[in-house]
Amino acid sequence: MLPTILDLTSLRAAYEAGQSPLEIIETVIARRASSKDPAIFITPTPDEALRAEARALMERAPQPNSLPLWGIPFAVKDNIDVAGLPTTAACPAFTYHPEKDATVVARLRAAGAIVIGKTNLDQFATGLNGTRSPYGAPRSVFHADYISGGSSSGSAVTVASGLAAFSLGTDTAGSGRVPAAFNNLVGIKPTPGLLPNTGAVPACKSVDCITIFAPTVGDGVAIRKIAEGFDAADAFSRRTKPATLPGTGLRVGVLAGAEREFFGDTDVEALYDKAIERLKALGATIVPFDYEPFREAAALLYDGPWVAERLAAVEDFLASNAADFDPTVRKIIEGAKGKTAVEAFNGRYKLEELRRKTEAEWAKADILLLPTAPTTYKVADMQADPIVLNGRLGRYTNFVNLLDCAAIAVPAGFGSNGLPGGVTLIAPAFTDDALAPLADALHRAAAAGMGIDRAAAVPEPSRVASPTDNTIAIAVVGAHLTGMPLNHELTTLGGTLIKACRTAGDYRLFVLPNTVPQKPGLIREPGYDGRGLEIEVWALPPDGFGRFVAKIPAPLGIGKVTLEDGSSVSCFLCESHAVKNAEEITALGGWRGYMRRTSAA
Amino acid sequence: MLPTILDLTSLRAAYEAGQSPLEIIETVIARRASSKDPAIFITPTPDEALRAEARALMERAPQPNSLPLWGIPFAVKDNIDVAGLPTTAACPAFTYHPEKDATVVARLRAAGAIVIGKTNLDQFATGLNGTRSPYGAPRSVFHADYISGGSSSGSAVTVASGLAAFSLGTDTAGSGRVPAAFNNLVGIKPTPGLLPNTGAVPACKSVDCITIFAPTVGDGVAIRKIAEGFDAADAFSRRTKPATLPGTGLRVGVLAGAEREFFGDTDVEALYDKAIERLKALGATIVPFDYEPFREAAALLYDGPWVAERLAAVEDFLASNAADFDPTVRKIIEGAKGKTAVEAFNGRYKLEELRRKTEAEWAKADILLLPTAPTTYKVADMQADPIVLNGRLGRYTNFVNLLDCAAIAVPAGFGSNGLPGGVTLIAPAFTDDALAPLADALHRAAAAGMGIDRAAAVPEPSRVASPTDNTIAIAVVGAHLTGMPLNHELTTLGGTLIKACRTAGDYRLFVLPNTVPQKPGLIREPGYDGRGLEIEVWALPPDGFGRFVAKIPAPLGIGKVTLEDGSSVSCFLCESHAVKNAEEITALGGWRGYMRRTSAA
Repeated sequence: MLPTILDLTSLRAAYEAGQSPLEIIETVIARRASSKDPAIFITPTPDEALRAEARALMERAPQPNSLPLWGIPFAVKDNIDVAGLPTTAACPAFTYHPEKDATVVARLRAAGAIVIGKTNLDQFATGLNGTRSPYGAPRSVFHADYISGGSSSGSAVTVASGLAAFSLGTDTAGSGRVPAAFNNLVGIKPTPGLLPNTGAVPACKSVDCITIFAPTVGDGVAIRKIAEGFDAADAFSRRTKPATLPGTGLRVGVLAGAEREFFGDTDVEALYDKAIERLKALGATIVPFDYEPFREAAALLYDGPWVAERLAAVEDFLASNAADFDPTVRKIIEGAKGKTAVEAFNGRYKLEELRRKTEAEWAKADILLLPTAPTTYKVADMQADPIVLNGRLGRYTNFVNLLDCAAIAVPAGFGSNGLPGGVTLIAPAFTDDALAPLADALHRAAAAGMGIDRAAAVPEPSRVASPTDNTIAIAVVGAHLTGMPLNHELTTLGGTLIKACRTAGDYRLFVLPNTVPQKPGLIREPGYDGRGLEIEVWALPPDGFGRFVAKIPAPLGIGKVTLEDGSSVSCFLCESHAVKNAEEITALGGWRGYMRRTSAA
Repeated sequence: MLPTILDLTSLRAAYEAGQSPLEIIETVIARRASSKDPAIFITPTPDEALRAEARALMERAPQPNSLPLWGIPFAVKDNIDVAGLPTTAACPAFTYHPEKDATVVARLRAAGAIVIGKTNLDQFATGLNGTRSPYGAPRSVFHADYISGGSSSGSAVTVASGLAAFSLGTDTAGSGRVPAAFNNLVGIKPTPGLLPNTGAVPACKSVDCITIFAPTVGDGVAIRKIAEGFDAADAFSRRTKPATLPGTGLRVGVLAGAEREFFGDTDVEALYDKAIERLKALGATIVPFDYEPFREAAALLYDGPWVAERLAAVEDFLASNAADFDPTVRKIIEGAKGKTAVEAFNGRYKLEELRRKTEAEWAKADILLLPTAPTTYKVADMQADPIVLNGRLGRYTNFVNLLDCAAIAVPAGFGSNGLPGGVTLIAPAFTDDALAPLADALHRAAAAGMGIDRAAAVPEPSRVASPTDNTIAIAVVGAHLTGMPLNHELTTLGGTLIKACRTAGDYRLFVLPNTVPQKPGLIREPGYDGRGLEIEVWALPPDGFGRFVAKIPAPLGIGKVTLEDGSSVSCFLCESHAVKNAEEITALGGWRGYMRRTSAA
């Protein structure tokens, strides 16, 4: 029996246990048929086509789980091309029939994933609420009166209701995050350019991102890694340059003072505060920061010139088909008609000034924790006041792509009204991997389940391990010890002291003759039964380690030493010919003992 | 006696020999008074103020050459603020009186340099010819009928005629390079953002660069290093991230086919070809590349939306003072009035597409060599057809800032008409330092003198040394040799083979027992008289070297080995205990000999 939520761990286990992709696809078909929300899909993949896909996969890769996404069903927002299905962008008159998959879709299908359909969205991805579509308004899986969030509305609902293991959204203002919050999902919003946009209908071409909705952070990250990568066909595609975050002492910035705005929603406010407490319990240092420059940047997206990108994307179509637009979407896009090139450049200048101001805030915090959306609304209320209420939803999301950040939205639990709230971790470009362990831990700590299944446990195999420490450990024995004359060579290369400890017992220490400053030579002699020698273990970045090793003169070198605990670490060693007539000082326990003896003499 | 051209070497030598800044300033005052070109300055620093500056310097730093630019006279383009002198941007009605120096001016003055005046320019830095100013048209120092080039016209002429040791220009389309070509100077065009623009009148704020005219590349680079550096007050200021160029085998891209366009100027064409020959003689590999995507990007600057930045910069002033503009400048700037925000974004998209296309060309060449300007014109001809002829001047310069490149313009010799030509070396962002050694060598090889002094020798102390090779050499002995099972560990870390050679004679080689793949152990035994052992020397980047060393298991390590030529290099060594009962294979001459024996057996 498959669980309600189709996470990767459960599906892979089912395949491992002998279920076939055809059986899983039949489950998806059955669930899709019995779904109570008629507005999720614009074009579901026909049942027979789905079955054919499953059979084709089994022919191409017969071994279960022999591809990274072997038989994994996913949904695609209907502004991203899937060959064989129409692309509508939720505007029937705009429909075209792509011959090729979007680059990310092609990569996911090559990895074994199966497209179950094209999902509903706010038309031309213009909106954060999910009600701006002639195909209806998908609903929150927790209450049919409430919006699903948008613009990637249908994509979020497919995953949250167990129709797909993951789905693709797009995110310009927050469309890959707000629906995650409203449906108790993870939303992976990659650094702009990390996932190529080839084959996606542009909203704001310079800031659009394809995103992933998934039940867990681990699932979302695994899928992102398959979909990401440079694509020359997209002029905004970028090569990855992974950025790190501190391994310990992580500072997380949180809203403070008047910038804490929830529009009266005390449920979401309480969920935000609980998420802060969870981060504290996870060891993060909580620091208030000034949200003002971020908020001002956020305002540029719709109030500034960037809305002209939306007009640029559909200008010809709008000229001939104005009546075919959703009235609100049309109003927003037509608002760009009067904007001048001077305003566009002035907007750019304003953004660069705000980016500079945010740098002062990034000096305080490594990561920001923000409410994904400050509140939510009923469909009827949203439709009654579509622009003002939609604007509120993007209060904490609109700046993220303009300011070139990575973000992961995670569930934050449920309010007294039974609706979920979400929080988002945000950090500068290319921290996508670095953000993931904390996002995963925060999701697990919330114990909020996955999607509609509030009781589901986040599967252990999807846990995101902390990234490997990117430094190299080196044990020093003599003149490089703390306080000794060459210690500065370590510190100027970025070295930090990890610990002072001893070697295993079978090492001997000698005073090397004719060295300035004086240096010892460490030699291993298997079988020698000593007490071990005092050393210090330092951490250096790889290039600093490389430069350090390259400077070491003969007869010294760097090999591996065994420590008293049995572990092995890079360490100074000495060519044996150099200690032939040297004084042995093993009995002094280390170089400090020798130095004490020398200064006492 | 000071030479005609006031390069840093000559001035420092004069100070070293006992001349005082006051004497040098008197020379400058005298030369300025006898200058035949009345259009160089808009506001010369008054004689008494200059003398007061020199005296103040001697009080602040009495020791000769005790500041990096101690007593060095320089000129400042009149769109860059100097406290105490008006800023006009060559538009009298625009004049304001800044209270503060521009950031770069403040840095140069703090280093001891003395401002001799504010120089003429094409109004609002709009032009590449130097005739668009109500303050007259500065002339080429080689022929008074000919344009000086612009927009930094006066700044170039001050240096080329020996009034200043260097000068500041600004460069949006080529204004810091074209006047260098027309006056036999070096033009340093830094990577955009490297020198802050705080206190400069914007032309196109997103691409403007402050530049340096100097007699030699070495002088220009030294001055740039004092002026550069992050300034939070300029939203487009960037932190330096030095980029390297290959130390050997440098590939220089040159124009080919229909893209070779000199508008009939066979003199400049011949000078360009001679520069190519000089680069060959300097060891560069010459490769033809496709200039088309660069040319298309260049066209965007005036024909695309970027001209709206010029309008954004002066919009309010233009509204009230249209009649105060130079008619050509006004026509160009007003051309932006009809441009829409959609056009601005479409221009950005076009630029990003072209940037992608240029990446294919950068895969062929490390550096581009282009004519600085394809031809030159008489002042009268330029004024008769000001837009078309100006456009030709920027054919090879307009793309450089839009595509985020560094450039150094250098003299290329003189044509049959007695006018100089110039060439420019261009490479991607932050190669400013990496470009300099080749630019300097190319200038020296041209033997074209400096500025108006065609016979001057480029002083030896200003020579720009090649940057130190940024790799670390490592000698490998066994399983890492070319073709051996672990060689991939070197290549995947970015390793390249430098040479195959032998160790000195006092090394012995053993087969380490129980190693997979099989590995040798190299041990030095002073006094042992062998033939040396075959090794390979590889180069690794420092972080690759660090990662490589960190992975080496005991009993192996990295120390230093002495080669047959007596030099020392990082190399695999072995702890001596490990070879106690090992088979010695020294007689086989190296690991390959052992492998041959093993496979023959």
